[in-house]
Amino acid sequence: MKHLPWRRWRHLTKVDPDKPLPLPAAAAVLASGTDAIVIGGTDNIEAEAVTALLARLTGRGVPCLIEVSSPACLVHGADGYLIPVVLNAGDPLWLTGLHQAAVRWAAEPLPWHLALTEGYIVGNADSAVARLTSARIPEGPHDVAAWATVAEKVLGLSLVYVEYSGRFADPAVVAAARQAVAKAHVVYGGGITTAADAARMAAVADTVVVGNLVHSDWTSLAATVSAVKRTAPPGARQVAP
Amino acid sequence: MKHLPWRRWRHLTKVDPDKPLPLPAAAAVLASGTDAIVIGGTDNIEAEAVTALLARLTGRGVPCLIEVSSPACLVHGADGYLIPVVLNAGDPLWLTGLHQAAVRWAAEPLPWHLALTEGYIVGNADSAVARLTSARIPEGPHDVAAWATVAEKVLGLSLVYVEYSGRFADPAVVAAARQAVAKAHVVYGGGITTAADAARMAAVADTVVVGNLVHSDWTSLAATVSAVKRTAPPGARQVAP
Repeated sequence: MKHLPWRRWRHLTKVDPDKPLPLPAAAAVLASGTDAIVIGGTDNIEAEAVTALLARLTGRGVPCLIEVSSPACLVHGADGYLIPVVLNAGDPLWLTGLHQAAVRWAAEPLPWHLALTEGYIVGNADSAVARLTSARIPEGPHDVAAWATVAEKVLGLSLVYVEYSGRFADPAVVAAARQAVAKAHVVYGGGITTAADAARMAAVADTVVVGNLVHSDWTSLAATVSAVKRTAPPGARQVAP
Repeated sequence: MKHLPWRRWRHLTKVDPDKPLPLPAAAAVLASGTDAIVIGGTDNIEAEAVTALLARLTGRGVPCLIEVSSPACLVHGADGYLIPVVLNAGDPLWLTGLHQAAVRWAAEPLPWHLALTEGYIVGNADSAVARLTSARIPEGPHDVAAWATVAEKVLGLSLVYVEYSGRFADPAVVAAARQAVAKAHVVYGGGITTAADAARMAAVADTVVVGNLVHSDWTSLAATVSAVKRTAPPGARQVAP
């Protein structure tokens, strides 16, 4: 995904193809100032819904990515594709299994130049993604930091995604993940419903993802963008590269 | 492991700390012309045996690496550390789990600059490593090629290790793995007992690993080295980078 300046993105908006997105909500996303839109979800991902959502959001001045959480998401036309590898999955399907099957059975060569792998750390035991992947939930900052180290040092990934889907994490956990890596970009998503929450996470993460809000209270989205943009990004790392 | 010219190595000798290595066998390894020695195994790996073997083999003109297949292998003093990630493991412990635990509980920072991650593809269902990792055995060249693609394109690994421990693979399987990747270095190990077998694999793999022979018929080791060195390496790849 070298064609996109993703390391400079501070605010992402995640839209779930399984949830309704009223016309004013779509307009609010496009006008919010968010750096990019991510189409992604966990439950009931269907190619038709992904395609429809993509058609509504793409080509309107905001880069539009698909998070390939299921082969059904492999739909043409996105500006980029995020490929989750769930580092703490209890089932290897979510680490490499589905990926191998997708490669093995792809009808055409996959557009790897448009892809970026995300080293996912699933933190909220009560989330759909935690149940689906049988995630081994980390016990606090040290555990999350160790997963981040595995992402960067063992696997060589350049993006670590701390995912608390549905719950606002302790910012200390996100800070620990970022402190553990030398160069990897740290993304946080989960439970951000206010500008204040968005700002708190923007101080410890390189990028903040706002999701559910879009489907429920979209008029608040733009305020989370401004809050993130006003927040100084986390500082230089102390870890040797 | 940037300090070592591992991409130029054509022949590796793997020594199992769980098997006896008589004095003449150790001498034969060191005099064989092999490019590097790898200390590694699957069963009964103990720090004492690894340390003892390392002391006998290191500092004698041949780079000596440890393959960290268990935390017991994390012993000081090797020239480099190979970190297996078993891509087709049925248990995520062998993908990221043990790695995270090792990072989480390490008494001191780990020497990542000495490390190189291997994307392992376990191919022989009857091997100890296949049983230990509950490997999902690939069904032929296309399946192996897809795992190699996952290693390079999803995980970004620079080394793919096709492992048939105890059985000589169909060279077409190894060729398929190498053809599937653009830049990743492809290593083959398993069942090489003669110079002819070593040469056959050296024609399709970037590096060939000779293992068991060392413990049983070490006088034949040098012949496998000469055979590999006489064989032209596999040619340029057809896959776009």
